[in-house]
Amino acid sequence: MKLTSLAIGCLALALCGLAAPAQENSPTMNQEAHHARIALALHGGAGTIHRSEMTPQREQEYRAGIEHALRAAYEILERGGSSLDASEAAVRTMEDDPNFNAGKGSVFTSAGTNEMDAAIMDGKTLNAGAVASVEQVRNPIILARAVMEKSKHVMMVGSGAEEFAKRNGIELVDAKYFFTQRRWDELQKTKAAEKSAAEGGKKSVIREPDSHGTVGAVALDAQGNLAAATSTGGTTNKLPGRVGDSPIIGAGTYANNATCAVSCTGDGEFFIRAAVAHRISALMELHGMSLAEAAERALSDAQKLGGTGGLVAVDKNGNVALPFNTSGMYRGYLGEDGKFVIEIYK
Amino acid sequence: MKLTSLAIGCLALALCGLAAPAQENSPTMNQEAHHARIALALHGGAGTIHRSEMTPQREQEYRAGIEHALRAAYEILERGGSSLDASEAAVRTMEDDPNFNAGKGSVFTSAGTNEMDAAIMDGKTLNAGAVASVEQVRNPIILARAVMEKSKHVMMVGSGAEEFAKRNGIELVDAKYFFTQRRWDELQKTKAAEKSAAEGGKKSVIREPDSHGTVGAVALDAQGNLAAATSTGGTTNKLPGRVGDSPIIGAGTYANNATCAVSCTGDGEFFIRAAVAHRISALMELHGMSLAEAAERALSDAQKLGGTGGLVAVDKNGNVALPFNTSGMYRGYLGEDGKFVIEIYK
Repeated sequence: MKLTSLAIGCLALALCGLAAPAQENSPTMNQEAHHARIALALHGGAGTIHRSEMTPQREQEYRAGIEHALRAAYEILERGGSSLDASEAAVRTMEDDPNFNAGKGSVFTSAGTNEMDAAIMDGKTLNAGAVASVEQVRNPIILARAVMEKSKHVMMVGSGAEEFAKRNGIELVDAKYFFTQRRWDELQKTKAAEKSAAEGGKKSVIREPDSHGTVGAVALDAQGNLAAATSTGGTTNKLPGRVGDSPIIGAGTYANNATCAVSCTGDGEFFIRAAVAHRISALMELHGMSLAEAAERALSDAQKLGGTGGLVAVDKNGNVALPFNTSGMYRGYLGEDGKFVIEIYK
Repeated sequence: MKLTSLAIGCLALALCGLAAPAQENSPTMNQEAHHARIALALHGGAGTIHRSEMTPQREQEYRAGIEHALRAAYEILERGGSSLDASEAAVRTMEDDPNFNAGKGSVFTSAGTNEMDAAIMDGKTLNAGAVASVEQVRNPIILARAVMEKSKHVMMVGSGAEEFAKRNGIELVDAKYFFTQRRWDELQKTKAAEKSAAEGGKKSVIREPDSHGTVGAVALDAQGNLAAATSTGGTTNKLPGRVGDSPIIGAGTYANNATCAVSCTGDGEFFIRAAVAHRISALMELHGMSLAEAAERALSDAQKLGGTGGLVAVDKNGNVALPFNTSGMYRGYLGEDGKFVIEIYK
């Protein structure tokens, strides 16, 4: 099912994620009774994605990657598992997929290294965990969750975060695990374009699909708990040490059972300055906006500052919104009919 | 002038920061006409501060440090300078003062190192700069401002941030510059107390003044622009790589000409999860609260999660609020009469 007509401009899809099992709902079946409404939405990055520049094989790979992530999360939600586990599982799956800019497929910094950021937040307790600028952690989202659950801290960065990973048995890999030819070529193109611009040449625009990007997932579980998870390699050619919005609680990642769960993707600097994820929650709580309205407004606030991108969000009633103001966003969600909806373009 | 009676509990002082020069206001004097209302408030950390545990000399040192910082900022505001320059100057002054937990006086991590975080935000443009986990930067607030003004990024951490500092001529110092006997002793006491607690002994409470702490300043300048700046060494015995709320835009630091400028201090993890600084702005913008009400509410939200602390805030009309829910907060502001008000206890 393609809903391309619904995804125009900054459109926020507000679909009720009523999963199939809910139809068997019965007051005598306790687990099922709580199961009335699960919801799930995820993204694999927003950016310059044109159908004309995409090969059918490549598109198929992206769709398969999104479906794989949706399935990983759905299986958890469907058996009554937590939104925290589901959103983490979806992100972990995309971290292992070289097509997405997170984990394995992370872009390169200007120094030719890979530095990754991730965060997870539990809407029930407002517990949160975040890591930034880690270079050897295979799945930064697993480390973010460990920071949340196994430390007194919310955010850890750099070698300190990796030391913590080591002590907690989290898989570290050699930096060359993160090498992919495609991302390396993107870095060379970006550097060449910058050099050319600096030399007064016409600034060439990098239109490589997701030369920045991020992956993220939001979920509502059968217990009514919301969670959000985000992971990224950042932006191609970023300065070493740069941290984007993904691991900033309230900017790229936020969850609160009272309102919504949000995971953003896009020009991170602008999303931080506009505090996009927390703003969506605040617009719902304090201004009475719907999820769709709040998501569109916050995205528009970031755009006014100069930043484009998108986000996925789910509210406590299971409505989902997937607005973006770029030419495309890799995305998927659990449709009203319990089937997965997967889309890329506007 | 002591206003201790006004500073009870979580009290938010809402005083109009009308500076002396404003009284010479005249429509024919352009600079003066804009000068109707400047405002300034700063903190040197909130925590367990009891009068009975403070020596007169020590108290005098703190008061002198706060006054020094107030003066540095006031001189800039008074001659028509920007709130950005003023808040940075106040924080820089406190970073150089070994009594405060920022810069020179930073606390030690569990590994016996010093790792500092800082952020600055311009309410006019919503530009922001932040650094975290830097170990050799004499004045992290200067680096935060450089990130804001001389990079495309908002946040940089660790060695990447220090490399950026080097390339931008920002003063680096040997790590031993940050050694102070007092902070070292605090670390040993904290470790001994944790060890004792782990061995089943009675958990001894560390009541050392500001074993955590932060410095921060907020200002409104004659052009009507707000700014906030925050800097910290974090919490004694924190894990290396831990980042608190200070450098998180929307958590420990936020400024927006439409609402207010905020700098927080306290249990950073809880301030991040409650998105305290952005929440104050949102409560004003979306819920019509006064600065004092919004500051008190956001602080109370963080306390409900388990975190104590305080903050300084100023709104676009020059009202200031300095609420805290600890036994004390080193703080100062520009009073209605144009004189500095400096306080420590409730």
